Amino acid sequence: MNFRIIIRILGFLLIVEGVAMLLALAVALFYGGSDVPAFVFSSLLSLFIGTIAVLTTSHSPRQITKREGFVIVTLVWVVFSFFGTLPYLVSGSIPNLTNAFFETMSGFTTTGSTILNDIEALPNGILFWRSLTHWLGGMGIIVLSLAFLPLFGIGGIQLFLAEVPGPTPDKLSPKIQQTAIRLWGIYILFTAIEALLLWMGGMSLFDGVCHAFATMATGGFSTKQASVAFWPSPFIQYVIIFFMFLAGTNFSLLYVALKGNLKRLFHDEEFKYYLLFVLGFTIIIFSGLLITTTLGVEQAFRDALFQVVSVITTTGFATTDYLVWKPVLYVLLFALFFFGGSAGSTGGGIKIVRIVMLLKNSYYELRRIIHPNAVIPVRFNKHSVDAKIITNVLAFFMFYLLVFFVSTILFVFIDPDLESAMGAVATCLGNIGPGLGNLGPAVTFDHVAPVGKWFLSFLMLLGRLELFTVLVLFTPAFWKE
Amino acid sequence: MNFRIIIRILGFLLIVEGVAMLLALAVALFYGGSDVPAFVFSSLLSLFIGTIAVLTTSHSPRQITKREGFVIVTLVWVVFSFFGTLPYLVSGSIPNLTNAFFETMSGFTTTGSTILNDIEALPNGILFWRSLTHWLGGMGIIVLSLAFLPLFGIGGIQLFLAEVPGPTPDKLSPKIQQTAIRLWGIYILFTAIEALLLWMGGMSLFDGVCHAFATMATGGFSTKQASVAFWPSPFIQYVIIFFMFLAGTNFSLLYVALKGNLKRLFHDEEFKYYLLFVLGFTIIIFSGLLITTTLGVEQAFRDALFQVVSVITTTGFATTDYLVWKPVLYVLLFALFFFGGSAGSTGGGIKIVRIVMLLKNSYYELRRIIHPNAVIPVRFNKHSVDAKIITNVLAFFMFYLLVFFVSTILFVFIDPDLESAMGAVATCLGNIGPGLGNLGPAVTFDHVAPVGKWFLSFLMLLGRLELFTVLVLFTPAFWKE
Repeated sequence: MNFRIIIRILGFLLIVEGVAMLLALAVALFYGGSDVPAFVFSSLLSLFIGTIAVLTTSHSPRQITKREGFVIVTLVWVVFSFFGTLPYLVSGSIPNLTNAFFETMSGFTTTGSTILNDIEALPNGILFWRSLTHWLGGMGIIVLSLAFLPLFGIGGIQLFLAEVPGPTPDKLSPKIQQTAIRLWGIYILFTAIEALLLWMGGMSLFDGVCHAFATMATGGFSTKQASVAFWPSPFIQYVIIFFMFLAGTNFSLLYVALKGNLKRLFHDEEFKYYLLFVLGFTIIIFSGLLITTTLGVEQAFRDALFQVVSVITTTGFATTDYLVWKPVLYVLLFALFFFGGSAGSTGGGIKIVRIVMLLKNSYYELRRIIHPNAVIPVRFNKHSVDAKIITNVLAFFMFYLLVFFVSTILFVFIDPDLESAMGAVATCLGNIGPGLGNLGPAVTFDHVAPVGKWFLSFLMLLGRLELFTVLVLFTPAFWKE
Repeated sequence: MNFRIIIRILGFLLIVEGVAMLLALAVALFYGGSDVPAFVFSSLLSLFIGTIAVLTTSHSPRQITKREGFVIVTLVWVVFSFFGTLPYLVSGSIPNLTNAFFETMSGFTTTGSTILNDIEALPNGILFWRSLTHWLGGMGIIVLSLAFLPLFGIGGIQLFLAEVPGPTPDKLSPKIQQTAIRLWGIYILFTAIEALLLWMGGMSLFDGVCHAFATMATGGFSTKQASVAFWPSPFIQYVIIFFMFLAGTNFSLLYVALKGNLKRLFHDEEFKYYLLFVLGFTIIIFSGLLITTTLGVEQAFRDALFQVVSVITTTGFATTDYLVWKPVLYVLLFALFFFGGSAGSTGGGIKIVRIVMLLKNSYYELRRIIHPNAVIPVRFNKHSVDAKIITNVLAFFMFYLLVFFVSTILFVFIDPDLESAMGAVATCLGNIGPGLGNLGPAVTFDHVAPVGKWFLSFLMLLGRLELFTVLVLFTPAFWKE
């Protein structure tokens, strides 16, 4: 383990964060807000420390090992979150470190849970920074799922790129840079289009940009306390639904689709199931709302669709407080907390591809019982899935559940209401945003005890980095040699 | 699929049930209860229909196929439960078919959830029959886990018997009869010893026998509305704890231990984890009770131990209403709803061996990530576990969770309280007994809507037959050819 190179890379990335703060500074200057000094200080400090880290480690190796990769990926989110609190703390927008850290981690992990009770009172520079943390986090995840997650045998890339036959991460390296630039291109393009559409729909350009950041990153921070419900305009809500859905799709598939190969998109098995789950849950909840509420047909459909897409993509925007629905409807929605977006998207959670593989494997097992001598592998996108990948997916799922159960039990110490505890843990681990019980869409996480906020911040990180990246650091085997 | 042989075997088994009713008739006669005519009628009807079924199918094949086995195993629990309602219905103890079926299915599946609100008002013959359904169900499960569950690659036998190297069910057949008799011997012996000890501890012999039936079958029906809490005697409670623990142990191991090889028992990995889980959860809950209640040390320890053993073995007796504990304590207990007894015991649920294999596989996956080229199989009892078994365990676990989630959502239609719904589904699927919320240990299932009772009865069956046995019947592949 070479710590010099770890510090060096973190230093480089900290400079990136400092530059991002300069962007927020520009916004603050434009609006002439009280937050200008905070951004000047924060960006200078980040740039300064980042530069020192880079300069003092010039004699480090050119290449990082896999182990160092794990440490860097985990630490970068932590370092970003600590430095990202500076604008909040210095400007006094969020004067308390615990709250500021929770909000920043929630931003970078694209979770979207907030502790703010009066969002509209904040200066625009701060609001922009808050939304920007989502967008940067989303960019980070795109690189991560390209370069890193395939190491775990699963990720967007090898299920998509025909020229990459399977989980052979070594072969990816030469292509990563090129592919990352392509996918970032899509990310930036869609963000721009959405911002313009939202602006055309009646948002201010500022709100449009902030919401586009939060949508494409499947984040969920809004510039309004009421979230997207602030804009009852069906146009705005459908635009957000559409882009949330895109943000939860494998970006590589979107790239191919943009190049004209729509067939490829609609033949992709994960995408088909993603569509199926969205439509299925929407129809059921829509029917439920029609029967149990007095909402009009269009409104009920839009509410159902918005909340379903928002949860399955792990965005977490709200146009309605689903907790006022009949329990069966919000419990259905809660089931979606355990789905998550597509692999290779900015969405968090377990991911559609994993869910589908697990379900297929279970269903095939019934056939294996009937025909014990037949070899019946799981097939995905017309290929047999290697048993190693199935084992990996199983391990991921078990860890996910284990973390969920153990964390729920621990969180009950902090909040004795079981339903609220389950919701808080599931929403943070899945990088969604709102929870259940006393942490629903209509309330904030402000009232959670400090230890609970740190704990939930950790869960956001764990979920965002697909568990293994972080958990592996806690094994003795990792630190041997 | 030869239906004649299916009917023939069900007929034979129905005769067994009729004979069991004669046993209850003897008890009813001894106590001179009002239920004598009910048992005369029920047993004669069962014997009559059973005999007709056997006589009219004499030209059926000598051997059953595996497929027919699946059908028979599923149907026998259904048939037993329908005929088992007769004593309740005819005597008027439970005048309603839904309730009587729920109670009987709860008996035969060794669940122990009850709809009775005044147990003490029932005649002794009926109480005996109720406890006997547990005991017969437990006997059935012993045979099942010997002869049938190994087909799914998991079960008590192949993890135990050295001469059987792995999941090769064909080789078992000649030994099944002999082994079944051995294990039944232990079952009967322990039931007798427990009944005597309970009698010595101050129970009536009748209550002692009934509770011994319910304990050794990990059932949970009591002859008192207050369950075991009716007897505050520490001696009685510790005796029940001890025998619940034994009933949740692999009976094959108990056999070997009885023959003097205690080492074998304590070297068995499932048993070690079983002990570990029991002790771990007891210590945590015991500490929690000491801190949060005014209970004395011994009482707190006994309450914690009793409830932990009762839940992990899926017995479901109660000496206290755990819902009056602090939420974190009963949520911990609820986590145990997803453990279950050992393979080859009468306990239900997921089973310790599966939980341990899943956790091991997940933990090993972290090592596999660090050393991607190393082959790191899961080891259990010092042997590498075949990847097929891991896949099977994964499939089982996924089905279990899937059934749990989907059923919870469906049950919320019936009972809008999420916590109660989760508890009801988990307790019935795991064959435990009491649930959460409005279905805790202090209340009965009487107030559940009829459709909910049938649904929960189905879940009991599904859980008792380890899912696959029943689910396989719903696959098209099963009915082909």
